[in-house]
Amino acid sequence: MNDHTIKLAKRMAYIEPFHVMDLLAMARSMEAEGKQIVHMEIGEPDFVTPEPVIRAAQTALQQGLTHYTPAVGLTALRERIAGYYQERFNANVNPEQIIITPGASGALLLALGVLINTGDKVAMSDPGYPCNRHFVRLFDGDPVGVPVSARSRYQLTVDLLEQAEQSPITAVMLASPSNPTGTLLTRAEMGQWMKYAEKRHCYLLMDEIYQGLVYGEDSATIAGQCSHAFIINSFSKYFCMTGWRLGWLVVPPGYQREVDKLAQNIFLAPSTLAQYAAVAAFDSDSISILESQRQQFQQRRDFLKQAIQELGFQLLVEPQGAFYLYADCSRFTNDSFEFCQSLLKQAGVAIAPGKDFGAHESHRYVRFAYTTSMEQLEQGVEKIRVFLAGA
Amino acid sequence: MNDHTIKLAKRMAYIEPFHVMDLLAMARSMEAEGKQIVHMEIGEPDFVTPEPVIRAAQTALQQGLTHYTPAVGLTALRERIAGYYQERFNANVNPEQIIITPGASGALLLALGVLINTGDKVAMSDPGYPCNRHFVRLFDGDPVGVPVSARSRYQLTVDLLEQAEQSPITAVMLASPSNPTGTLLTRAEMGQWMKYAEKRHCYLLMDEIYQGLVYGEDSATIAGQCSHAFIINSFSKYFCMTGWRLGWLVVPPGYQREVDKLAQNIFLAPSTLAQYAAVAAFDSDSISILESQRQQFQQRRDFLKQAIQELGFQLLVEPQGAFYLYADCSRFTNDSFEFCQSLLKQAGVAIAPGKDFGAHESHRYVRFAYTTSMEQLEQGVEKIRVFLAGA
Repeated sequence: MNDHTIKLAKRMAYIEPFHVMDLLAMARSMEAEGKQIVHMEIGEPDFVTPEPVIRAAQTALQQGLTHYTPAVGLTALRERIAGYYQERFNANVNPEQIIITPGASGALLLALGVLINTGDKVAMSDPGYPCNRHFVRLFDGDPVGVPVSARSRYQLTVDLLEQAEQSPITAVMLASPSNPTGTLLTRAEMGQWMKYAEKRHCYLLMDEIYQGLVYGEDSATIAGQCSHAFIINSFSKYFCMTGWRLGWLVVPPGYQREVDKLAQNIFLAPSTLAQYAAVAAFDSDSISILESQRQQFQQRRDFLKQAIQELGFQLLVEPQGAFYLYADCSRFTNDSFEFCQSLLKQAGVAIAPGKDFGAHESHRYVRFAYTTSMEQLEQGVEKIRVFLAGA
Repeated sequence: MNDHTIKLAKRMAYIEPFHVMDLLAMARSMEAEGKQIVHMEIGEPDFVTPEPVIRAAQTALQQGLTHYTPAVGLTALRERIAGYYQERFNANVNPEQIIITPGASGALLLALGVLINTGDKVAMSDPGYPCNRHFVRLFDGDPVGVPVSARSRYQLTVDLLEQAEQSPITAVMLASPSNPTGTLLTRAEMGQWMKYAEKRHCYLLMDEIYQGLVYGEDSATIAGQCSHAFIINSFSKYFCMTGWRLGWLVVPPGYQREVDKLAQNIFLAPSTLAQYAAVAAFDSDSISILESQRQQFQQRRDFLKQAIQELGFQLLVEPQGAFYLYADCSRFTNDSFEFCQSLLKQAGVAIAPGKDFGAHESHRYVRFAYTTSMEQLEQGVEKIRVFLAGA
């Protein structure tokens, strides 16, 4: 079969695989040969889902709850999330505006699906979450990557967007905390974005997927504050439920029927079991497990932050959230992908190359994920030390 | 908030909600008032997921298997499905070509996402599965509904397509067994389609979601037989796993990398727990439960087929599979949606209106789903008898 003759939609030329997958495949084959690999490339918590959530799933299984739920999710879960916004953030969100989705990916698919026409411009930071530009391409929209630097803590600001682009922007994708940089938008920057969106009649797609994983600051939300924001959230990160594929979307007033209609057609419904499980994620015994894990993430961050700087990596801003350090490695290399490959091959340490997250100066950056134990992190740092000494 | 000012992508004007949802909402509110409703409108098996599958999920939970799997799914599950093709259908399918997806919906999203550009024509039968045309609209493609009648058992044939449409067709959506009609494509028709696709270099999107639910015929597949077919399948129907949201896509040679890339970006991965559970769906103790349930479906079909014809509905073809009867109700009404509403309000029986499945003569059809017990079906028939006598 000749691959050159297959028909492909044009969008596929713009959609890239994750480069880190090549590294992961290499790591797996090294492990198959008996080598020990320290994994600091993976964007998911190493912790298993909290026990009370697992128990809730077991109960649902015993009760035979294996049929479809409504397309927008279980009412009980939507109400629980609204309660969480109220209790934790003092934010007033109508449960009707909360749409349960198959992961945050499903939330992005719905939000862009109801908004984006062919050629519509969607602004986002470069670097940023790699799937964002690909979701825009899925709908033949035009992702506008705006270069950001340490000066704005790698966050896209209204000023930066206005300097970069004059033509109309349909939507702006923001993230706080951000992947890969771990930085937050300030309250003032949030306020400027909300004003911008309302004035320009464009929409904010606000990624709050790492909400809850914030260190030394208060966790925040813009839910209930903006008539022009779609808020994307997930049970994957703070709640340690990656494999369950469950997230949610808070839609602006007026969008509920349209998003429901699209969800009915393209998803039918989110996973029933995951939904019954997730109701228990907000219980106090779950939250206390998750908060103790957050403290472990903070300890790991504090350790790794200092350790990699001592090795000569530069952290140009304070990483306040998520579980990533976005580090300048230009002291060692001008090709961070090649650097990641050598580091894996020679030292058995896997980290993610900057080019997975954009084009702007990505050759001089790597991303460390502290999604493994302190012991592993210590071993990884020692291996990197030896690697750099020998390089 | 003024709904008229919200920005919507143009595609949303073409995407309709399921009309049966309005009936379902009415039924739920009648039930809340204490009324008994016979549900024959719902497109999911009433059976709970087989016990061995539930047990496999419980084991996975105990083992803490809550992290991501590869985007294309667990190797063990892909191999199990390939084994099933071999054992049950004598079809030789490479596990590498089997992509595990979040439901058949996820499979349709991937197949159309890699194939369809703005304006591309995708042919399908009218009537047919309502989401098909909406999936095409999602990518701003042009769904071409080809009217089909009892003469071709409501199946789209090469002849019908060639009579209807001269301009190039990028893909053709077929289904066997079909929703809403329950009919199969013959082996000869399948052969004609495969020749057509290869000659015209267009692609078949073959819906085999109801595979396994066939009565008095052998269940079939085109997997392993066609270089131009994407095959969509699901654990929802035969395997009674609707709420788990798990399906699969068999991709033609050469497409694996592209579909993997898209799956990585838009789904990350299918549900981990559902995948571990689904491995057990092919075990002999699961299959024997499912086969006994298939016999129950057949008994229900035989009963309902005769009973509704005695009431005056016309079945113009033999419904050989799935769990639907697509019945002509023109003896009673020229507006089948209004008929469904009255039947629900006055008799407490819910069935689906033809207009959910297309435009061609849909006002004279309704769909009965035999996804409820014999006792309920008998009660339903009796209620319809009384309703029709009073009408």
